[in-house]
This record gives sequence, C-alpha cells and structure tokens, in this order.
Amino acid sequence: MFKKQQLTKTECSQSMQAIKDALQVLSGKWKLPIILALSDGPLRFKELQRAVNNITPKILSKELKELELNEFVERTVHATSPVTVEYNLTPYSGTLEKLIAELQSWGLQHRQYIFSKSKMRKAVEA
Amino acid sequence: MFKKQQLTKTECSQSMQAIKDALQVLSGKWKLPIILALSDGPLRFKELQRAVNNITPKILSKELKELELNEFVERTVHATSPVTVEYNLTPYSGTLEKLIAELQSWGLQHRQYIFSKSKMRKAVEA
Repeated sequence: MFKKQQLTKTECSQSMQAIKDALQVLSGKWKLPIILALSDGPLRFKELQRAVNNITPKILSKELKELELNEFVERTVHATSPVTVEYNLTPYSGTLEKLIAELQSWGLQHRQYIFSKSKMRKAVEA
Repeated sequence: MFKKQQLTKTECSQSMQAIKDALQVLSGKWKLPIILALSDGPLRFKELQRAVNNITPKILSKELKELELNEFVERTVHATSPVTVEYNLTPYSGTLEKLIAELQSWGLQHRQYIFSKSKMRKAVEA
C-alpha cells in the first residue's frame, strides 16, 4: 500500500489541492490523448481527428480551445491558399511527459490485471 | 518537449488505449482525492467526508461504490452496536502510488507556473 508518510494537516490539504488542480486541468477523457497524438509533431485538424479515434469535430474543437487556454497547445495559421491551420505542442506541455508515461504504464498493467482476473474466473467456472 | 520515440501504429494506439483506460477508471475529480485521504488508514463515512472537503454524501457514496467495484477500496462492517462501517484501501490501490505522486508534483508546479505568470502580468500592468 502507500508508504506511510506523516503529513501535517496543511501538507495533506496541499497535496489534495495539487491533485485536484491537476485533475481539473486535465479533466475529461480527451485532453491527454490529444497531447499524446501531437507528441510526434504538428497535425492539422483532420489528421488529429483521425489520430484520436472516435472524437467528434465539435468536441475536438472545444478540447483544443481549452488546451490552448492552458498553454499546452499552439494553433498556427499558415498563409497558404487556402490557409492551413496546424496544432502543435508548446514547450510547457513537456512538463506533462512523466505524468503521461505513468498513466500509460498504469493503464497497461490495469488491463492485464482485469484480463488475468477474467481468465481466472472462467477457469473456476469451467 | 516529448522525447522523440518512433512508435509503430499499433504501439501508438496501444499507448492511447492505455491512457484512456486509466482515465476512465480514475475519472472525475473525486476518486484520487478519496484514495489519498484513505492512504493514512481506514476512515468512516463521516470522517472521509470531512477529509475530502466539499464532497456531498450522495457523491461520496457513488464514488465509493465505483472504487469498490474497481477493487481500490474495501468496505468493512464491524458488528458493534450500532454497526460501524469503515472504508480502507486494498493492496491493489497501491499500484496507483506513483501515479498519484506524479499528479501531485505536476499540480504543484502548475500552480506555481500560473502564479508566476499572473505576477508577471501585474508587473507589466503596473
């Protein structure tokens, strides 16, 4: 279980606040997948929509606006004809790298856990 | 920014799926704060409600049920009179430790970042 740390009441409420802050900024199921999709380089709206499966244009556009506001994503308009718009990660989004890696490895192990449990259940029922 | 990793298409969609899995299980702003509150030891419903500020009994009860289903939290009924009910973390919840620590440290640095930006803005306006 968790390492026992004796926290003072202020420290404890600070940790809790930090976690709430992080969850608020990264809320919803799309923001981190969008950031992950952009981690290989800039993408246009349609490309991004394909990279993040099953997202509707309306939601993608809303999420991109929030990601821009929080300075994780930049929108660049190129003066081609017709204009092209690209989305790319800001340097600040790099602060999320370790967090994303942690979510990824936890998600993988959780899937394996659920999978091995359901196999065990089937073996018992057989 | 992110370390350049050349991922194959399958690897990339696996990472994306892992992140979506993790976000789905931990969705909402309460689950991780509840787990953090229980990390010091078992608590009763009312104590837990106090530890996680501003949560309503209805939401706490709903979140606890989901946490039980996903095997992060155990509910123990003690045969006192009247009966007392305690909630405590399962060993499996320990797999979340690094992820919670990462969210915490990212949340702290994000707050400092926002704070230093607003100070800079005020200095420019003054």
